[in-house]
Amino acid sequence: MSDFKEISSSQCYGGTVKKYQHTSHVLLGSVMKFVVFTPPGATVEKPAAGVWFLSGLTCNEDNFITKAGACRKASELGIALICPDTSPRGIKVEGDDASWDFGVSAGFYVDATDPKWAAYQMYSYITKELTDLIDANIKNVDVAERTAVMGHSMGGHGALITALKNPGRFKCAAAFSPIVTPTDVPWGQKAFTGYLGSIEAGRAYDAAELLGKYPAEGPKLPLKVVQGTADSFYPSQLQPEVFEAKLKVAKNENLSVEITMAEGYDHSYWFIQTYIDEVLLWINKYL
Amino acid sequence: MSDFKEISSSQCYGGTVKKYQHTSHVLLGSVMKFVVFTPPGATVEKPAAGVWFLSGLTCNEDNFITKAGACRKASELGIALICPDTSPRGIKVEGDDASWDFGVSAGFYVDATDPKWAAYQMYSYITKELTDLIDANIKNVDVAERTAVMGHSMGGHGALITALKNPGRFKCAAAFSPIVTPTDVPWGQKAFTGYLGSIEAGRAYDAAELLGKYPAEGPKLPLKVVQGTADSFYPSQLQPEVFEAKLKVAKNENLSVEITMAEGYDHSYWFIQTYIDEVLLWINKYL
Repeated sequence: MSDFKEISSSQCYGGTVKKYQHTSHVLLGSVMKFVVFTPPGATVEKPAAGVWFLSGLTCNEDNFITKAGACRKASELGIALICPDTSPRGIKVEGDDASWDFGVSAGFYVDATDPKWAAYQMYSYITKELTDLIDANIKNVDVAERTAVMGHSMGGHGALITALKNPGRFKCAAAFSPIVTPTDVPWGQKAFTGYLGSIEAGRAYDAAELLGKYPAEGPKLPLKVVQGTADSFYPSQLQPEVFEAKLKVAKNENLSVEITMAEGYDHSYWFIQTYIDEVLLWINKYL
Repeated sequence: MSDFKEISSSQCYGGTVKKYQHTSHVLLGSVMKFVVFTPPGATVEKPAAGVWFLSGLTCNEDNFITKAGACRKASELGIALICPDTSPRGIKVEGDDASWDFGVSAGFYVDATDPKWAAYQMYSYITKELTDLIDANIKNVDVAERTAVMGHSMGGHGALITALKNPGRFKCAAAFSPIVTPTDVPWGQKAFTGYLGSIEAGRAYDAAELLGKYPAEGPKLPLKVVQGTADSFYPSQLQPEVFEAKLKVAKNENLSVEITMAEGYDHSYWFIQTYIDEVLLWINKYL
């Protein structure tokens, strides 16, 4: 029996921001929280489109919904925002807090194969367990049909791979400053070596690699990337140009990417809030 | 010589969010931080209107600028947002962290007279020291002529008393869920007893009391209050109806208040972000 419960609720832009808590089976007993903004007018009969936001390193379920100013436009468009956490919580793995880019708040949206990190199954948590939980319990939000996924940095990586690995599941995917070539950059190499035992094993979770594996028969998957030019992690960790080049190599007409270089913007939520309306309007075209 | 310095800077909505730090003399050596959002186009020759936001209990210089989604509209209107901290920092007074509604992050915008709390001079800090510091160092923001003040809860109290005690200084004042009758409610009574030695002494910092002391000859001071009806501190600590009634008693044609009761909203930044555009548009009319 699930211990799923609502732990807070506030009205915002005519809709509601609610925080929920549950114990995750796939994350081996982790006590997980997530936040959902539901726009006004969402009902069981007419659920709001469910748009996921996957957060970056050091973040949890609060960062995006608190800092991005997204509820205003989401309310206007009738979009629900689903904000999960970024790693297992409430369990202890030795060394899980030794660095900010691995372990706690750095689950990297993979299913770990190293036995030590057995609880780190964030890919399955997001795509299966949490999706099913929302589908079963928050019936005025649509995570089955009218759904899309976005994210930031590590979560931008998460958004792109989640969409690319599940053709037809999401109407589109958008990413703010995403790690698009994780097997080629330090953050991804560290995560894949730790959780999967090798960088090579990470190719199954590398967005640029996955472009070439997307089914030729479709369906269509529009992608959008927004990257700040003053981002201190660009281009050392963040390489949208490589992603664009690999898309050309893939020659799959069902895939397209719109890349916006945001002049003078850094890696922070000051950047995300500036572009959130544009991204939500873009997503809304496909819902 | 001042140790005033910029400690971070990010582009946001075409403008800039900068955090500054300085050692305060009036706060007896406190190391204070504050944040300023400057809209695009603000120059020394044509400075942006400077609108203060005074934060509430438990808050610091980050809460409003991070959580209220205010930069979008401020950028559009050409308004600078000035966000100070809520108490002295970096000095220790015995018992200053014993409760969340007195001491650290609860300066209450008064000049303490109790010798123990001598560092707690937040009224002078905001109205004189920090104003002068910004005037001298951030020359593309106008804190002398085109300026206004707003705030939340304890900071709503701060905004109203700062405007009422300084006729002509601010073009208008707006307050989200403000403590308008502090001498009559627990938060204010605790603060005034502690900082000033008595509730009676707090009458000089009580917005409802100050309405009757505003000069008959003006100038005009438009006031706006927005209060959520689902606020758990309404009406025990927050009494806009009393404020409105005292305004009628004051019979001063230079004072006016527009009170908005926000149906279903609580005391949080989910409420503030929902009403921030309306409040900034209202303020902008008077700048």
